[in-house]
Order: sequence, then structure tokens, then C-alpha cells
Amino acid sequence: MSEDLGITAKKSDLSEWYKQVVVRGKFADYSPVKGMVVYRPNGYGIWDQIMHNFDKVLQARGAKNTSFPLLLPESLLKKESEHFAGFTPEVLWVTQGGASDLEEKMALRPTSETIIHHMMGKWLQSYRDLPLRLNQWNKVYRYETKMTKPFIRGREIIWTETHTAFASKEEVADETDWAIHAYGDFIENFLALPLIRGRKTDSDKFAGAEYTLGVEALMPDGKALQSGTSHLLSQKFSVAFDVKFLDEKEKWQLAWLNSYGISMRLIGGLLMIHGDEKGAIIPPKVAPIQAVIVPIIFKGKEQAVNTVAKQLHKDLLEGELRVELDDREGYTPGWKFNDWEMQGVPLRIEIGPKDVEAKSVVIVRRDTGEKVKVKLTNVKEEINKELDSLQTRLFEKAKKDLESRTVDASSLDAVKKAVADKKWAIVPHCGDAKCEESITEATETGPRVIPFNKKMKSGSKCVGCGKEAEYLVLFGKAY
Amino acid sequence: MSEDLGITAKKSDLSEWYKQVVVRGKFADYSPVKGMVVYRPNGYGIWDQIMHNFDKVLQARGAKNTSFPLLLPESLLKKESEHFAGFTPEVLWVTQGGASDLEEKMALRPTSETIIHHMMGKWLQSYRDLPLRLNQWNKVYRYETKMTKPFIRGREIIWTETHTAFASKEEVADETDWAIHAYGDFIENFLALPLIRGRKTDSDKFAGAEYTLGVEALMPDGKALQSGTSHLLSQKFSVAFDVKFLDEKEKWQLAWLNSYGISMRLIGGLLMIHGDEKGAIIPPKVAPIQAVIVPIIFKGKEQAVNTVAKQLHKDLLEGELRVELDDREGYTPGWKFNDWEMQGVPLRIEIGPKDVEAKSVVIVRRDTGEKVKVKLTNVKEEINKELDSLQTRLFEKAKKDLESRTVDASSLDAVKKAVADKKWAIVPHCGDAKCEESITEATETGPRVIPFNKKMKSGSKCVGCGKEAEYLVLFGKAY
Repeated sequence: MSEDLGITAKKSDLSEWYKQVVVRGKFADYSPVKGMVVYRPNGYGIWDQIMHNFDKVLQARGAKNTSFPLLLPESLLKKESEHFAGFTPEVLWVTQGGASDLEEKMALRPTSETIIHHMMGKWLQSYRDLPLRLNQWNKVYRYETKMTKPFIRGREIIWTETHTAFASKEEVADETDWAIHAYGDFIENFLALPLIRGRKTDSDKFAGAEYTLGVEALMPDGKALQSGTSHLLSQKFSVAFDVKFLDEKEKWQLAWLNSYGISMRLIGGLLMIHGDEKGAIIPPKVAPIQAVIVPIIFKGKEQAVNTVAKQLHKDLLEGELRVELDDREGYTPGWKFNDWEMQGVPLRIEIGPKDVEAKSVVIVRRDTGEKVKVKLTNVKEEINKELDSLQTRLFEKAKKDLESRTVDASSLDAVKKAVADKKWAIVPHCGDAKCEESITEATETGPRVIPFNKKMKSGSKCVGCGKEAEYLVLFGKAY
Repeated sequence: MSEDLGITAKKSDLSEWYKQVVVRGKFADYSPVKGMVVYRPNGYGIWDQIMHNFDKVLQARGAKNTSFPLLLPESLLKKESEHFAGFTPEVLWVTQGGASDLEEKMALRPTSETIIHHMMGKWLQSYRDLPLRLNQWNKVYRYETKMTKPFIRGREIIWTETHTAFASKEEVADETDWAIHAYGDFIENFLALPLIRGRKTDSDKFAGAEYTLGVEALMPDGKALQSGTSHLLSQKFSVAFDVKFLDEKEKWQLAWLNSYGISMRLIGGLLMIHGDEKGAIIPPKVAPIQAVIVPIIFKGKEQAVNTVAKQLHKDLLEGELRVELDDREGYTPGWKFNDWEMQGVPLRIEIGPKDVEAKSVVIVRRDTGEKVKVKLTNVKEEINKELDSLQTRLFEKAKKDLESRTVDASSLDAVKKAVADKKWAIVPHCGDAKCEESITEATETGPRVIPFNKKMKSGSKCVGCGKEAEYLVLFGKAY
């Protein structure tokens, strides 16, 4: 492989390293459309795995898939004023159809609350229709003016958005909570990304929400990646869109609404967290290709090796493994090894003439580089074992890293030091919005979440103003 | 069920019947966005099944899933002039971002050839990179000014578009052919929609194609539904987007390009073909709900019946069947029966107190209304048997109907008579474009396809001009 096709940046130079991994690993590529990228099979294939697996979680919860229109007439988007104010600066507008101007301009949806609530208001009749859980695996658009980054931030966002309606506040609160833990568990188990779960402070909640819950991952450069959110919406939405139902006593009641989402930025997170100097390392549970078979060809032995390689490929595919056979001519095995390593394929299976004679293959792990010689008779079991072990190791490694870079701080200087060390800090806070803003400014960070399950010592003083603290807040820089 | 919630239109009044089935069967609903509808779980769920099953066919062929940007800068769309001329009258344009005007207006993609070819040109280096097959399950937008109809015609089209590149014309022709038969087989096997397959005449080919192949279904009102197309693109695209590769002799060659697609209009087709006076009938292979369990409750017997119904629901879900349990309170069994029939669920499973005693259930078929009493011990086998039988019957019935409504015609009057009888007609044609247009005008139809595998009698005369005929053309009205 020529130098310019491999990863030449050090991972410590995260921004350049990430760009190289994304483009040279064929996860995504820049397009002629400003702020929008192309997701190539290596990147989109991970999203396919996420959809396939998380859709089961949603279905089991009772959510149903739907499709609502992309375009939102301006008058519809305006119906809930806080929501409109929050989103309007970043809306892309369609104003022409064919050669003529439209009567009313239409937004490319920045999110779908308005149209879904409008339709819920039309459909909902009785308490018997509740709960209602509608999901979309779709795309939303935001006229991002900050620097964009493939997967992480762009004008086209590939995500899933689920919108639910309930008869009571207790139930909608339970759903809001369920969703953030469903996301947390899925992201940790499938993407091997450890998280901190918690509640957003008011400054950072969704436009129009009563409160927002979130899961946050910590990237190698010390920046937080918001990785999923769940919003308990204020009843202003039910009022604005007339989302009402007849209760058991035949009285009209306002419905309680919630929405939650995760996006393809998760893939950016896993690339940054798990990758190394050679390129990406994809967790096996979401890897589009879990193993690649590379035949090692010597002149005169081609046929024997290729026959075994092809048969193995067939057997493994039938065994529900996602496996590629790289029998391309004109590339050396070494070139192929580097290429697949850069793309992050978890396991490589080498078959050479000696392996054919010994009825065995060599399995090479992408994370540790360890090689294991395995008999063909139990190769499937060994592959599954190695995939499980690799998945677990990626998570454990990332979890240790997260723990070591999450620190308690009781002063602004301690927060600044944590950030300088590429960490984030948990601090006691009084709960006042202006005080929070002063901490944000002084430390050049922001409030990520009020972590669940972190107990504050009684008598703790606010890191901003010194008054008695109300709760702990995780502060850090963010993507 | 109150009268106004059931299907009140006769199927012979197809347009009104279709509207009622779509809306009252909860397949789709009208939205506040002109020309765009909401696809509800009953409708989108069928698309989920189509995606799940056809994606396997694409993957096995070597196609990979991707995502290309929705927005196309005007300059990019303009690069291939025939293509641009074909699509520009129906493009929706984004002209504003936030409060400011964009430097260049951007089209909501009417189709993705331009951006995919642009990227292929960037990626493609060597003959070793070929063939290249990139797929998107996505949405495209056309500023439709004709009357819209849910699923069938609208400004937002949910579809799959596959774009391929090859080293030779033989290979690209083979792919173009493979795709139309892959669609044909899938649509007949899974959607139970019989088709006529063939080649489009030049007047009806894709903007920028050398030729287009298509599959056509015949709706109950005599209109054809174009159900899938596959295009061998002219090399103007490779030139315009510089899609070239180094061949084995290290010489640059233009790639041969193709694209093919099917859309959610297939669902409109199956609703129209299979439905009856009670509502929809969904073919089991693509039904989001294959069977619904309805407990028949009598006072004092609730617990025994509900316990058996819940256990059966659990067992069937574990048996990989898509089953719902309708244990809603406040609705009578009769109301539920009508409701599920309207929604087209293939089988209903009734469990009453006597069934519990006899350790049996009653299975009711949606298509024939036949009832079978089945022991609980082999209920899963029986359900699978009935689902298979229902799937086959729907197809056989539709196939007979297609055959009986496809007629040979040797005069314009015979074509007119066929059309008046809600049929389409196969006619000998000279191959001249102006003559074709005259037939179209005289019969108020259009050329659907030149059917494969239909032999023309030697010496046949063109139905338009009386000259010697070159081939047979299927003429009919169309959606």
C-alpha cells in the first residue's frame, strides 16, 4: 500500500486522524454539497446494523414505523412558538416548484414534532388509542453554520425519531426515562461506547421541552459527544396542535407528549473511541463485515487455497456471520491486510498452502494483533468466541478510559485543569442559570448533564458562586 | 362499527373505494402538506417487509447500501443536459438557509444519478474496482402537478434506487436485465402481483437512458401501474461525470452505467388488486400483521380465555409469526372483526370459552371467509399452511384476471374496445415514433412495454399505419 493511502496522522492529532480514517477507511466522503457528506458502505453499513438491532427494541416497546412528509409549511412550524424560535435560524427553505414560486415556503424538517403532533391531534379520539408510539428512521436538515464533520455534525442528519403520547404525566415520564436507558444500554452493548446518563440543565434542553434526558460519551480529545436524547415535552404542544382524547369519563383531556432520538453521530463516536494508529476498529456486533478471508497465494498452489477459501466463505455466510472473501487479483496479501485493518474489520482469516495441508486457518484480531491457529472443523466457534472477546475488550478498555477521565472538581481551576488534561469534571452546582453561565464562560466548557446515580456529599458548595449546591453537574467541552 | 368507519364504496367505484381503504384501513392519511401524505404503520409496515426481503436480494447480488445527499446544486443537476431537461420542470428548489439566500439554489433530488456518478468518477480507478453496485433506500421529490394519490403518485416518493457501473456493455446489459427480472420475481412472489415484463419504447424511456426495461401491473379499472424500471444509461453520463477506469492494459475507458428502482407505489397496486368490498387483503409475505388473535369474552370466563390468548400470542411471536393480540376493552368482537378485515390482516384467530374447553381455536381466512377449527397443539403449523395457501390464491386469482384482461388487438377499434372493457391490448407496431404517437392519441392510451416472450405472427401489420410491424407493443391507460 502506498504511503498516501494509509493513515499517516497520529491519533493524538485527533482531528486530522479522524478525517483520514473516515475518508481512507471508506466510511464517508466529502460531496459537492456544502455541509453534506456521502455515507459509503463501510459507514452506512454500521447504521444498517444499528437500525436492524435497535428497531427490535422499539417494536418490542410497541413503537410502529411510519413516514411523515419531509416538508413543513411555515405556518405549521410556527404553531408552537418556543419550538419555532429554537429551530428557525437553522432551517433550509423550499421556495420554488418547477419554474414558479410556492404560495407558502416550506421548511426541510429540522425535526418532526409539529407535523406528527398535528396528525396525532387528528387521529386521537379515546383513551383506548393510547399509548401511541410512532417512529421514523429518517433524515432531518439543519442549516449548520459551524464547522461540519462527517457523522458528527452536518446539514443532513440521519437518525431515528420516536414520538409518543400518553394519558398521564406519570406514564410519559416513565417513557422518557425508559428511552434514555434503552439508548444507553444499546449503545454500551452494541457500539461498546460507555456513557454517562443524566438530565440536561434547562439551558441545554430541547426547544419546547419540560425537560430533556441525555447520554454523553467522552471523546479522546476531551470533548463530550451527546449521543442520544429523550424529551418530556411541555403541554404547549398538545395545546398548539390540539392533541386531546376522551377519558374514561368521556371528558376531553390533553395528551402528554414525548420524543426521543439517536443519530449516525454515534458512528463518529465509535470511530474516535476505538480506532488506533492503523485506522478504525469496528465493534463486531455492528460491523458490516465481521471477518475477511484473505487467501495467501503462491504460484502453483492457487487452486487448493482458493477452493478452501471459497468453501469457508460459503460456510460462514450460512452460519449467519458477515464475512467477505478478498480474492482480488493484483494486490499482495500485505496490501490487503493493511487495507482491511484501516477499514476496521474485526477479524482477518488467513489461508495459505500450509494451512490447507494442516486443515487449519489463522485468525488475526484487529484490536490486539493476536494470531490463533484454528482447525477448520471448529473455525466458526472460534470466530464467534474471538468476536465476543473483541467486543467485550473494546468496551472494557473504553470504560476504564472514561472512568479515568471523569474527575470530581470543587473549584473552577480544577475544572480548567481537567479540561486541559482532556477530561470532564463533575461539580456541585447551586442550580441558578446565571451562575451556570458564569461557570461555562470561565471554564470554556458547558453543562453536559446532571448525572443519574451520582450522590453529592451533603454540604457541598457550588463551584460557581459558593452557595449551597443543589446537585452535581458534568461540565466539559462538546462536539 | 358505525357505518361511517367501514368501507361504504363499492370496489367498482375504484377511486372512492381506494381512498376509503387507504384512509380507513390506516395505510396512509392526508397531511397538511400539499401532494404529500403520511404513511401510517399499516402502510409503512408493508414497505418495511419489502425492504427487509428485497435488501437480501440486492446484497446477494453484491449491492451495498449508502446514503447520498438529498440536495443537488443546480450546476450538478445540469451536467447531463437530456437528464436535466427531463427533470427540471418538476424540481422543488431550496433557495434559503436560515434568514439568508443561498449562493446557488439546490434541488431536492428527483433521482440521484448526477451525484452518484459524480462520486463514482471520483472513486473509480481501476478495472479491479468494478463492478460497482450502490443502493439507497430513500426518498425523492417531484413537484407533481397532476392529481396525486396515496402510494401511487405524489410529491414525495419512497423508493429504492440502485446505481451500478461496469467495464463493458455486455455486463451492464446483463445487469439491466437481471434487475427487471429480480423485481418481477419479487413482486410476483411476495406481493402476489402478476406482471408483464418488457422494454419501454423510446418515447417512454428514462431521461438520459439508452433504453429502459419495465414491469407493468394491470389495475382493476384497466389502468397500468408501472411497477419497476431498469435503465441502461447512455455513455453521456460517463462523459459528463468523468466516470472512467484504467483497464488491464492501463488505458482509460469510460464506464458503463445503469440504474434501477422500485417504489412504494407497489403497495397501492396490491391494495387495488387484492382488496374486496370489506377493505384490504394483504399478502401474508409482506403483511406487517399476519394474524390477529381476538378473544371472545363472556362474563365470568374472561380469565381463562385471556390466559390462553396471551400464551398463544407469545408462542406465535416466538415462532417468528407477526401476530397481534386484540384484547382492547370496550369494543365488541364483531366490531373488531370488521376493523381487522378492513385493514386486510390475512388471518383472524378466535378464542372463546368453548374453544378453551376444547383446547382449540378457530382460524378465519380474510380472503374466503372460511373457518377452520384447529387444535392448539398444531395451531402454528395450521397458520403457516393457511398463510401459504392464501398467498398462492391471491396470486393465482390476480394472474387469471391479468390474463383475461390482456387481449391481442389488430385494429385501433379493437384497442378502444379493450380499454372500454378495462383491459389492455397487445398490438403489432411498425416502430415509428410518430406512428406510435398517433395510436396513443387515437386510443387515449399509451405504450406500456414491448413485452418479452411474446412472439409476433410473421406478416403482421402495424395497427397504426398498416405497414409491416416490427414488434408487439402493449397499449393501455396508465396511472
